[in-house]
Amino acid sequence: MGAFFGEMRTIEWIQESNTVRMIDQRWLPARLDYLHCKSAAEVAEAIRSMAIRGAPALGVAGAFGIALDALRGEFQTIGEMNERLQRSADQLIRSRPTAVNLAWGVKRIMEVVGNSSLSVDKLQKRILAEALEIAEEDVRTNLLLAQNGASLIDDGDTIIHHCNTGSLAVVDWGTALGAIRFAHEHGKHVHVLVDETRPRLQGTRLTAWECEQYHIPYEIITDNAAGYFLHSGKVQKVFFGADRVAANGDVINKIGTYMLSLAAHANQVPVVSVFPISTLDLNIACGNQVDIEQRDSEEVLGIQYQGEAVAPEGARALNPAFDITPNELISAWVTERGIIRPPFTKNLTSLRL
Amino acid sequence: MGAFFGEMRTIEWIQESNTVRMIDQRWLPARLDYLHCKSAAEVAEAIRSMAIRGAPALGVAGAFGIALDALRGEFQTIGEMNERLQRSADQLIRSRPTAVNLAWGVKRIMEVVGNSSLSVDKLQKRILAEALEIAEEDVRTNLLLAQNGASLIDDGDTIIHHCNTGSLAVVDWGTALGAIRFAHEHGKHVHVLVDETRPRLQGTRLTAWECEQYHIPYEIITDNAAGYFLHSGKVQKVFFGADRVAANGDVINKIGTYMLSLAAHANQVPVVSVFPISTLDLNIACGNQVDIEQRDSEEVLGIQYQGEAVAPEGARALNPAFDITPNELISAWVTERGIIRPPFTKNLTSLRL
Repeated sequence: MGAFFGEMRTIEWIQESNTVRMIDQRWLPARLDYLHCKSAAEVAEAIRSMAIRGAPALGVAGAFGIALDALRGEFQTIGEMNERLQRSADQLIRSRPTAVNLAWGVKRIMEVVGNSSLSVDKLQKRILAEALEIAEEDVRTNLLLAQNGASLIDDGDTIIHHCNTGSLAVVDWGTALGAIRFAHEHGKHVHVLVDETRPRLQGTRLTAWECEQYHIPYEIITDNAAGYFLHSGKVQKVFFGADRVAANGDVINKIGTYMLSLAAHANQVPVVSVFPISTLDLNIACGNQVDIEQRDSEEVLGIQYQGEAVAPEGARALNPAFDITPNELISAWVTERGIIRPPFTKNLTSLRL
Repeated sequence: MGAFFGEMRTIEWIQESNTVRMIDQRWLPARLDYLHCKSAAEVAEAIRSMAIRGAPALGVAGAFGIALDALRGEFQTIGEMNERLQRSADQLIRSRPTAVNLAWGVKRIMEVVGNSSLSVDKLQKRILAEALEIAEEDVRTNLLLAQNGASLIDDGDTIIHHCNTGSLAVVDWGTALGAIRFAHEHGKHVHVLVDETRPRLQGTRLTAWECEQYHIPYEIITDNAAGYFLHSGKVQKVFFGADRVAANGDVINKIGTYMLSLAAHANQVPVVSVFPISTLDLNIACGNQVDIEQRDSEEVLGIQYQGEAVAPEGARALNPAFDITPNELISAWVTERGIIRPPFTKNLTSLRL
């Protein structure tokens, strides 16, 4: 195990300065830059601008964000602290409404705050300890996800992968790409078709870059070419993560996941969604109840080709960031507690939630 | 009727100089440049580099290409001319193997050459007359396609459109986008969701630009977002063209057409393919028999975001230019001789081919 670029993690608490250091993913693969956040507001802005992304990483970012405001604020009373941190929590959760892990990480810290009878000083230490524990748990959870997911990968598989679900999406290892990496590092021959993942191109920018680091054979394809390859009979699996999973098994994930799953299903190719249990939202009966984030049209329009703008002046665009894949298109969930197959509603009882 | 930017056609024969002038579509929407071709080799290069594209326009380009070599060459005998033009024909057809209209246009001229007992001088005039007739026929055919296609569009429809099938894909009017434009100009309220159409972004660069010219309300979406909108219930139709249609009704068209059609079908949204009868290839029993052009990986990798390359150094890509949409996903063909519905094999007899 261990981080793949030196010993650097995607997101990390810096003890000396009580700051949060994260890889600024907006500039990859052109350059490996770091962002240092000193407050929940700065973390929220990093999330909004997608300097950090990936459902599990956002859970840790949320927890660290609250910890920053808790440790760096000056509070006379626990009540004052609680009130201030509630505002920090709201601000963080609003920065990415669709991803459930972000709210999960924030809430886990806020429970520590809410249930505490400690002094301000001791509560600060307790909050930091909890946030660090969430980060460590993420590494452990992701290694289990990788192991469990790899058990579904056969020697010789060609796998289509959507978005980025590697180390950059978590603290270390990753979910769907973690499973592929685990299989590769344990001697299975795998080949990845990397969906470029418009509009923000997380596949081209991040997943292809990670595949280069791990020496996993891959080619990038446009998202709309996945159907061609699935129909060709040369693809054995489709793997992706999840931003939120509803109680009925519907998967809310990066835009394009639904069309990819439809094409896989039409060609009898298994569709595997890999995610930590913190992504499961049993308060949501089905995917249609989830608020889908609509992002800036500039993400769609603002690419250049041969150095020239591709969109005509004044062009308009719509940019939903996620879509809903109905449970009947999903062949398996991979979680840290094992693999769940349909019917999900019945079989998720084995997760002992 | 009439061309939409002044009186300029997408491709035109210039009598004064015996050259072919075409809009160089590689630079739109940044600038409206023209390319002047003096030989079949130059036309073939324009096709290969996608300065000109769109199945019907390629038919005219093929015919004009042969006419250029016929009129500008110096031949002692008909035999010499025939031999020379056969090489021109092969060169043109190889420049875009998947599009059937290109071969159709080339062959129509070669039949004139092959069946002729004229003098060199008279045959040159006859070839040019036939090539010009193909271009005029294209305008007439496309107006019929537009009228027939518009009859399937209802007032208030929101339509997802893939690739570019407007005036730029033909000599004038266009196929699928021609139908949308016809409906719009005849008072129907239509709204277009323009698939950006990776990798070459014909939707963003060309279709959005045409929609701006015609004042048709539109927004650009990423190809992988079409499923989200189809599932939302806000889309009434899917329209696209065709590069080749097999005898069983399978449609070979721009990459992404298959996944779009799957998503439309899964959400009970009608899928309409608009094309001239010259696109129908009854020599091909089903789509799987068609040779799918694999283009340069640079088309996938060579975009920039915020001025920076998006692909890591040394990244690899696969780039199939077309895919096959099985006939069972297609709700209707629109041709210049009317609308054909499934079962296509049975109902295409009404086309009197």
